[in-house]
Amino acid sequence: MTQPNPSAAAELLDGLRAFIEPAHIRADADSKARYGRDWTRLYPPDPLAVVLPGDVEQVRQLVRYANDRRLALVPSGGRTGLSGAAVACRGELVVSLERMNRILDFDPVDRSVTCQAGVITEALQTFARERGLYYPVDFASRGSSHIGGNIATNAGGIKVVRYGLTRDWVTGLKVITGRGDLLDLNRGLIKNASGYDLRHLFVGSEGTLGIIVEATLKLTRPLREPSVMVLGVPDLNGIMAIYGALRGQLDLSAFEFFSELALRHVLKKGLQRPFDTETPYYVLAEFENPQGLHTDAALALFEQCAEQGWLVDGAISQSEQQAQELWRLREDISESISEHQPYKNDIAARISRVPSLLQEIDGLLRREYPDFEVLWYGHIGDGNLHINILKPKEMETATFAKKCGDVSERLFAALQRHGGSISAEHGVGLTKKSYLHYTRNQTEIGYLRALKQVFDPNGIMNPGKIFDPE
Amino acid sequence: MTQPNPSAAAELLDGLRAFIEPAHIRADADSKARYGRDWTRLYPPDPLAVVLPGDVEQVRQLVRYANDRRLALVPSGGRTGLSGAAVACRGELVVSLERMNRILDFDPVDRSVTCQAGVITEALQTFARERGLYYPVDFASRGSSHIGGNIATNAGGIKVVRYGLTRDWVTGLKVITGRGDLLDLNRGLIKNASGYDLRHLFVGSEGTLGIIVEATLKLTRPLREPSVMVLGVPDLNGIMAIYGALRGQLDLSAFEFFSELALRHVLKKGLQRPFDTETPYYVLAEFENPQGLHTDAALALFEQCAEQGWLVDGAISQSEQQAQELWRLREDISESISEHQPYKNDIAARISRVPSLLQEIDGLLRREYPDFEVLWYGHIGDGNLHINILKPKEMETATFAKKCGDVSERLFAALQRHGGSISAEHGVGLTKKSYLHYTRNQTEIGYLRALKQVFDPNGIMNPGKIFDPE
Repeated sequence: MTQPNPSAAAELLDGLRAFIEPAHIRADADSKARYGRDWTRLYPPDPLAVVLPGDVEQVRQLVRYANDRRLALVPSGGRTGLSGAAVACRGELVVSLERMNRILDFDPVDRSVTCQAGVITEALQTFARERGLYYPVDFASRGSSHIGGNIATNAGGIKVVRYGLTRDWVTGLKVITGRGDLLDLNRGLIKNASGYDLRHLFVGSEGTLGIIVEATLKLTRPLREPSVMVLGVPDLNGIMAIYGALRGQLDLSAFEFFSELALRHVLKKGLQRPFDTETPYYVLAEFENPQGLHTDAALALFEQCAEQGWLVDGAISQSEQQAQELWRLREDISESISEHQPYKNDIAARISRVPSLLQEIDGLLRREYPDFEVLWYGHIGDGNLHINILKPKEMETATFAKKCGDVSERLFAALQRHGGSISAEHGVGLTKKSYLHYTRNQTEIGYLRALKQVFDPNGIMNPGKIFDPE
Repeated sequence: MTQPNPSAAAELLDGLRAFIEPAHIRADADSKARYGRDWTRLYPPDPLAVVLPGDVEQVRQLVRYANDRRLALVPSGGRTGLSGAAVACRGELVVSLERMNRILDFDPVDRSVTCQAGVITEALQTFARERGLYYPVDFASRGSSHIGGNIATNAGGIKVVRYGLTRDWVTGLKVITGRGDLLDLNRGLIKNASGYDLRHLFVGSEGTLGIIVEATLKLTRPLREPSVMVLGVPDLNGIMAIYGALRGQLDLSAFEFFSELALRHVLKKGLQRPFDTETPYYVLAEFENPQGLHTDAALALFEQCAEQGWLVDGAISQSEQQAQELWRLREDISESISEHQPYKNDIAARISRVPSLLQEIDGLLRREYPDFEVLWYGHIGDGNLHINILKPKEMETATFAKKCGDVSERLFAALQRHGGSISAEHGVGLTKKSYLHYTRNQTEIGYLRALKQVFDPNGIMNPGKIFDPE
């Protein structure tokens, strides 16, 4: 599965024109550069071409065509991924779903919506809101990411403590398998006990089993007047203690954390401190608070936590606008540090293990890599931590990448001891495939390979992502 | 994979004694009859023997032993299934998990519990309640069913509208695959994007891929002072209209329905009518109502629905005891009709399709089978209907079974037109395997077979359940 020579390449593209309009087959340098990569910047894009099918039948024909010619395909959504799963750097054909961006069906009784894979997350959220409903899977790349890509990576984000992950909202999935079969899985049912649930195998499969072409998603009622608190926390154990106290009495819809070092980057971009006191860590908690019904309870909890020494200062939103401003302290971090080429890790552990894991990793990094600026933030309520290491200005990019690779090995070894995962929500893709064994043992990886063989016997679907062929 | 002859059978059992204590290998007629069947009474039990392993290692040895000898195994839990998935009627070895009934770990920060597969549902519910928490998957057989069996069938029950199915509560799963490999899947993580999620393949696999030996389950906070309403509804469309009205304003934790004909059976057993008015249908709605905060809203909704003609009478619980009494009207139906040898169907459709589907099926049954007494009840809030056909006293059991088989074909054809499923929560097992094609097409069934081949290449795991080998 190496890059075909120029004449073979031309022939391959000619063949595509039999069933895809020439305008939707792009082999110009700009398209190849644009569609050949995701938000990682580690792999120089180098696809054979980009094809933009317009319907399910074209996708099916495409996969069959690729099978006959052993042509590698890279399914492509909003290309906001952070693990390289949608990167095409070895002469693959990129299959962009962006033209398949229609919402096909909505039913207010079912509270469900059926859409093509290329619908943008925010478009779906807006569609739901306009109908008095809510699609609760939400994250910073909502304006670009596609529903199909969200499903392929089982996207999580900022509301998981209450609403779970993308997986929990998919009630139907249409896929073209690597064999070229169209499967119409579960068709929007809530309950269906009729044999193995293939739907859940495709959720999180990162394009390696087939191409997701349509999905049916549940919607729910909107949050009722959520309030947001930001709390200043002197140490890590306090974070989990506060979490325990709050969730006992409030219906939390988010429980995020970030470090003072991370906060400073968003302050540099013009945001205001939530309160005067500086603390090493902050948590952001969101909870339903219709008609201010739970404000007193929240303030009482604040006092209790303060008495215990778990927090030293805090702010609570008095309006929707204030709530949004507090959210930005957390949500803007990622963008505010992008100029520092951060090396991102996205790890998960059981919540109970988070403080000791965080302490161990933080200690390791301070001791062994004192010249690195390490920023912590993440969805701590569901055990998900994002560790961002900023490149020292004077360090060569290659040296930095090498050092970060060393860090990862040690970090993942610690993670393995704590029973965690090398990826919480970004996926494995290319960036983490050499570390997969820290989370899945060889027996499991053997089963993963055998499953791929069932759906994609010729290995044309996103080869080399998650794991290499044997 | 037919029954071994007596001397071969004796040899097989002898071999087992090398790694399982003789006291836990039972070949007496009583044990074989008891462990060879579930709550269906259609298949005369005829296992080779029953073995009761005491730990994971014994299960692993057992599966390897069975592989070497091509000995069919039937994993067995509380044997409360309604589809014959745990029936051993062809000389299989029953593997009962009932000795593996310990709760192994509990963590209040994670709000999670790890237990062996043989823990009884109600024991887990009690364990959670004693710690101020709640395991919300709940159904009538809670006193006998095992957690392992719940997972193997993805059990649903009466709280699905709020809490989803068993699948949604499993954060970790230890299984022995049909190859004899121990897989320790997901280990209690909320977020884990590290390759295909095998856990979800085992949920609902009805013992055909391997044996579930341990599970980690999430717990949640208890419902806050739930109130229960029972409403008298003159026609089917009214049910869905009421559902739409209530769920807009109340946090429903159950939305059940039953017919007047079904109600009469529980009244015969001594329960009281909830109110004087007789209506063809009733709904039972449960919602959180801390300190009676939502009682006024509920009564206002009642008035609105009455004005629309969607309901004609109703009752609301004023105490926990009254709530329980109202629940019994719905929960006692199944037991109250058991003496009539009901032929049970357990179908699902999208909620929006339920009224037209129900009308079509009810019409069909009245027209073509006027001598059958047909009772409807079910979890209508999630699209799940249980149709129970009572055997006319004078009809031979065999004639009745034959006629019900004819009914099923026609019923499932109607269901297929409505995009529904032949099983919502009971599973396929033996009773529905010849109808599987109404819900899963041949291409899908081909993939199911190929997946089984990956985990159980010798076909020793619960053979002939869900589908036959090719």
